[in-house]
Amino acid sequence: MKKIYLLCLAFWVCFSAFAQIEIAHIEPPNWYVGMKNPEVQILVHGKDIAKANVKLGNSLAILKEVRKVSNPNYLFLNLTVGKKAGTLPIVFSQGSQTKTINYKLNEKSKDKNRIQGFDASDLIYLIMPDRFANAVPENDNVEGMLERANRNELYGRHGGDLQGITNNLSYLKDLGVTALWLNPVLENDMPQSSYHGYAITDLYNVDKRFGGNQAYLDFINQAHLLGLKVIQDMVANHIGLHHWLMKDLPEASWIHQFDSFTRSNYRLATASDPHASENDKMLMEKGWFDTTMPDINQTNPLFAKYLIQNSLWWIEYAGIDGIRMDTYPYNDKEFMATWAKTLLDEYPTFNIVGEVWIHSVPMESYWLKGTKNRDRHISHLPSITDFPLYEAINAALNEPNGWNNGLSRVYHTLAEDFLYENPMENVIFLDNHDLTRFYTVVGEDLNKYKMGLALLMTMRGVPQLYYGTEVLMTGGPEHGYVRQDFAGGWAGDKVNVFKNEGLTSAQSEALNYLKKLANWRKNKKVIHTGKLTHFIPDNDTYVYLRHNEQEKVMVIIHTGKESKKLNTKRFEEFLKGINKGKEIISGQTLADLQEINLPAQSAMIIELEK
Amino acid sequence: MKKIYLLCLAFWVCFSAFAQIEIAHIEPPNWYVGMKNPEVQILVHGKDIAKANVKLGNSLAILKEVRKVSNPNYLFLNLTVGKKAGTLPIVFSQGSQTKTINYKLNEKSKDKNRIQGFDASDLIYLIMPDRFANAVPENDNVEGMLERANRNELYGRHGGDLQGITNNLSYLKDLGVTALWLNPVLENDMPQSSYHGYAITDLYNVDKRFGGNQAYLDFINQAHLLGLKVIQDMVANHIGLHHWLMKDLPEASWIHQFDSFTRSNYRLATASDPHASENDKMLMEKGWFDTTMPDINQTNPLFAKYLIQNSLWWIEYAGIDGIRMDTYPYNDKEFMATWAKTLLDEYPTFNIVGEVWIHSVPMESYWLKGTKNRDRHISHLPSITDFPLYEAINAALNEPNGWNNGLSRVYHTLAEDFLYENPMENVIFLDNHDLTRFYTVVGEDLNKYKMGLALLMTMRGVPQLYYGTEVLMTGGPEHGYVRQDFAGGWAGDKVNVFKNEGLTSAQSEALNYLKKLANWRKNKKVIHTGKLTHFIPDNDTYVYLRHNEQEKVMVIIHTGKESKKLNTKRFEEFLKGINKGKEIISGQTLADLQEINLPAQSAMIIELEK
Repeated sequence: MKKIYLLCLAFWVCFSAFAQIEIAHIEPPNWYVGMKNPEVQILVHGKDIAKANVKLGNSLAILKEVRKVSNPNYLFLNLTVGKKAGTLPIVFSQGSQTKTINYKLNEKSKDKNRIQGFDASDLIYLIMPDRFANAVPENDNVEGMLERANRNELYGRHGGDLQGITNNLSYLKDLGVTALWLNPVLENDMPQSSYHGYAITDLYNVDKRFGGNQAYLDFINQAHLLGLKVIQDMVANHIGLHHWLMKDLPEASWIHQFDSFTRSNYRLATASDPHASENDKMLMEKGWFDTTMPDINQTNPLFAKYLIQNSLWWIEYAGIDGIRMDTYPYNDKEFMATWAKTLLDEYPTFNIVGEVWIHSVPMESYWLKGTKNRDRHISHLPSITDFPLYEAINAALNEPNGWNNGLSRVYHTLAEDFLYENPMENVIFLDNHDLTRFYTVVGEDLNKYKMGLALLMTMRGVPQLYYGTEVLMTGGPEHGYVRQDFAGGWAGDKVNVFKNEGLTSAQSEALNYLKKLANWRKNKKVIHTGKLTHFIPDNDTYVYLRHNEQEKVMVIIHTGKESKKLNTKRFEEFLKGINKGKEIISGQTLADLQEINLPAQSAMIIELEK
Repeated sequence: MKKIYLLCLAFWVCFSAFAQIEIAHIEPPNWYVGMKNPEVQILVHGKDIAKANVKLGNSLAILKEVRKVSNPNYLFLNLTVGKKAGTLPIVFSQGSQTKTINYKLNEKSKDKNRIQGFDASDLIYLIMPDRFANAVPENDNVEGMLERANRNELYGRHGGDLQGITNNLSYLKDLGVTALWLNPVLENDMPQSSYHGYAITDLYNVDKRFGGNQAYLDFINQAHLLGLKVIQDMVANHIGLHHWLMKDLPEASWIHQFDSFTRSNYRLATASDPHASENDKMLMEKGWFDTTMPDINQTNPLFAKYLIQNSLWWIEYAGIDGIRMDTYPYNDKEFMATWAKTLLDEYPTFNIVGEVWIHSVPMESYWLKGTKNRDRHISHLPSITDFPLYEAINAALNEPNGWNNGLSRVYHTLAEDFLYENPMENVIFLDNHDLTRFYTVVGEDLNKYKMGLALLMTMRGVPQLYYGTEVLMTGGPEHGYVRQDFAGGWAGDKVNVFKNEGLTSAQSEALNYLKKLANWRKNKKVIHTGKLTHFIPDNDTYVYLRHNEQEKVMVIIHTGKESKKLNTKRFEEFLKGINKGKEIISGQTLADLQEINLPAQSAMIIELEK
């Protein structure tokens, strides 16, 4: 931390040259009238701004409080905004000097269809924006920003941008995707490895190398026009080391500080463990996620309010449908509960999934709303990333079957669903930007790949794909290999997935398989909301049904290396009165359901008909 | 089942020879006045007994109802007993015939110290009575009973008896044991493999080859005199195929019946799984545990009441302190909840542990009182067998350490304790009569053995030992090898553990280690009731503390193959103000706690002192 303070000193030496009132930052940059809570806290940052008097120039808002902190370069204005939108002059005066900021109070949107949320009727597609498509080479490098593009560097910026995604929305739409989750698009003005987006240096601006705020709004509008929802990846746990706040912290307490660099122990278990030591708990939550990621102290009420407002602002400003919150359990849990509750109170149709990366159903469910935790922690988070099921699906496809192994892992993981209020809200996945790519995990075995996708697309929960999985992208576990460029996103790419050019036959097969499944799933209400009933895996075969009053879909996953005939007597409770079935991948009609032929290592998805 | 009905026919052909009123069975054999519930249901079994009229000979009780079932050889008398003990004549009459049964109504004991329960202050020792000590060779074979003793048969009867245990109580007392759990002692008059006790053929009589009821009462009295508690092993899920009931069932519905022999699928997960199929749930609960174990239908109200009364009777009759209920989740769960509640309402100081053999903390906690299950199942069971911790300790001692492996398995399992209302009530163990013996599991490695015992004796929960583990008995997984004879229990045994004769030096070392630990634990309140706080395993070392206002005990398990110096800075929250420690196994005083020398593969148990 000492290095940071030295940096700050240098900063103010330059700054002190100005005599007049200078305002370096004012955040949020605007606010909205018509919010349930009419209060807003405006952060004002400028050299000795604490010495200034503050007045409002009209009656669009009332200045309830001007808060000062130990650093004289900050003021926090607590305003109560009225019901009328317009421009609010905020007048700063010191001696003979005055400075007026014309602060916009815009109207909150009244469009009831604007914020859509997401649920199990969706299929989420995760994109790392730097690695998907480079539509605007001109923004690859931006004057004054620290890192320049270099496609030869595995961990460098490759130039992908928002326009690249916008240009290819119809590809995603055709694929059967209904929602897009982008890794963080906010500014990451870091000297290196800034491509991934998780070291945010400005919480109100999209990185200019992605196209800036306007490109983001355009992307969202185009996506919405095509019926695709947008999920914003947010980070409340930390900021990037080069965030402007770090150069001149309002108070030391805004960031968790240690004598020397102190890393999180990453043991999420400590948060819910009744036996955890104070030291372990402290380190998990307060230790830094990485050297470049100062850990936010969310018990600081000013920073806490800042973060909540920031999220509200993005929802209202951009009209996003959901948030994927990064490293959820690393945050102060009471803060996160308040954060989630505030967002959902303001936007009841919104949805949030928290990244909870742990291999334990109890430890996942601990973080969810509706769980009655014995330590009385009440969460308001509607959804988590279902890592236990992710692990189980991997095991199902790669382990020999046994009482506790292989397919039984999926069976057993789902059997613990009684801990969740609604497991249908879990986000389920085969891979993501942090995990070895699925096709690599299954040893580049197309049969296993298909079984995995069949599971993902028919299982309870909100399925999430990772860009490129549809064309068998490989790589991992090193992040650089997990996050390679999407073929067709760069001028001169020999293979162009968007245009279906140059794909191998395996890639085409995978793509068609997924397309068929995803588009079938899109309108299958029984998959979105139907009950799941499964049968104990037996002899390399796992059978479950999705069912409601109208429909029954039978899914058979057979991981055995030999084909077999499946006697269906065990499934009588669902097959009684059923005369035939339609296997949706092959399109075949099964006239006799008493015995079903299962090819080796195959998935069948059968719509049952009376 | 057809075979059984044929047997029954044969039975009645003989029986019909008698003209007078015959009563073959009357159960319970007596009852008690002073119970909270004054009602009792008496089963009367005798040829055509349903044709008889029933009257009571005095006013000690009121005959509220005489219930008949489809089989005319049964009557069920519902009595309300008064407040006075004595003999109640029950008069059966048919035509000129009468038959009087002088039914004893004894006083319920008023001794408040009689039923002691068990808790984490105890150390339970599990004995398989047939395999511990044969004090009375005369009862090895009993005229008219199906199986004869044969020590050469791994699965035969070996002659162990209750007197054998009674004779050696002082050995157990010296060992530091405080409670004895015996595998079932009730009659198992089965043609083979009757030694284990789980195929009960008479629910009111102790097997005569163990010494019968009187030997059991003597054993309990002697144990109590020495301050040792007694836990009775009970089975509500099934009876032995040769139980007299099976020869003439009151109603077919008393036993789960199938067209052909149908085994349980043993998937306990189905009981709590919200996605389980009806067929799988039905098979788990209603399928037979084994060919020789007819599965009881506890939704039959007559049999349900019979079973509850049977348990109450044993508590009152024998003064046992607790029950270990076999195969708990295989039973009808609503019945089990009522059963447990009834027993604990009548005997609030009593305790019950249910055998729940599953590798999932949620699926263990599902069965416990205090768990708010989403399916609204309310259990009243105070304790379960902690199989997840058992698995974790095995892994800790045998797996290489890693984020999710080795010692982390113990850490992680305990971290899920938030699902339990009170994890201190879990029965914890390293082995039992169904599991490969602990010393075999650790590859006959004495260091691992000691670490395992140190964990067991300092961990949260009620520790349970298995007979012979103290002298390094080996064997398994085959049951016969897990249940070998205890050395010294049979005349002519060359090694006699009871007399400390012929032990190897490793056996003596193990025995002394356990004795020291167990006797230390006996009076260590901080182990019985203190809080547990643990630290994330690090570098092959796992540290936890047991602590209360008065005491702190630090436990260090180091599974690494190299000795090391442990810097204790991480544990400051407990070591602040502590000047020295006493390691209780070596007796050594540790004057400097800043750095502790850990031998390779060792356990240290340190009492901290100011």
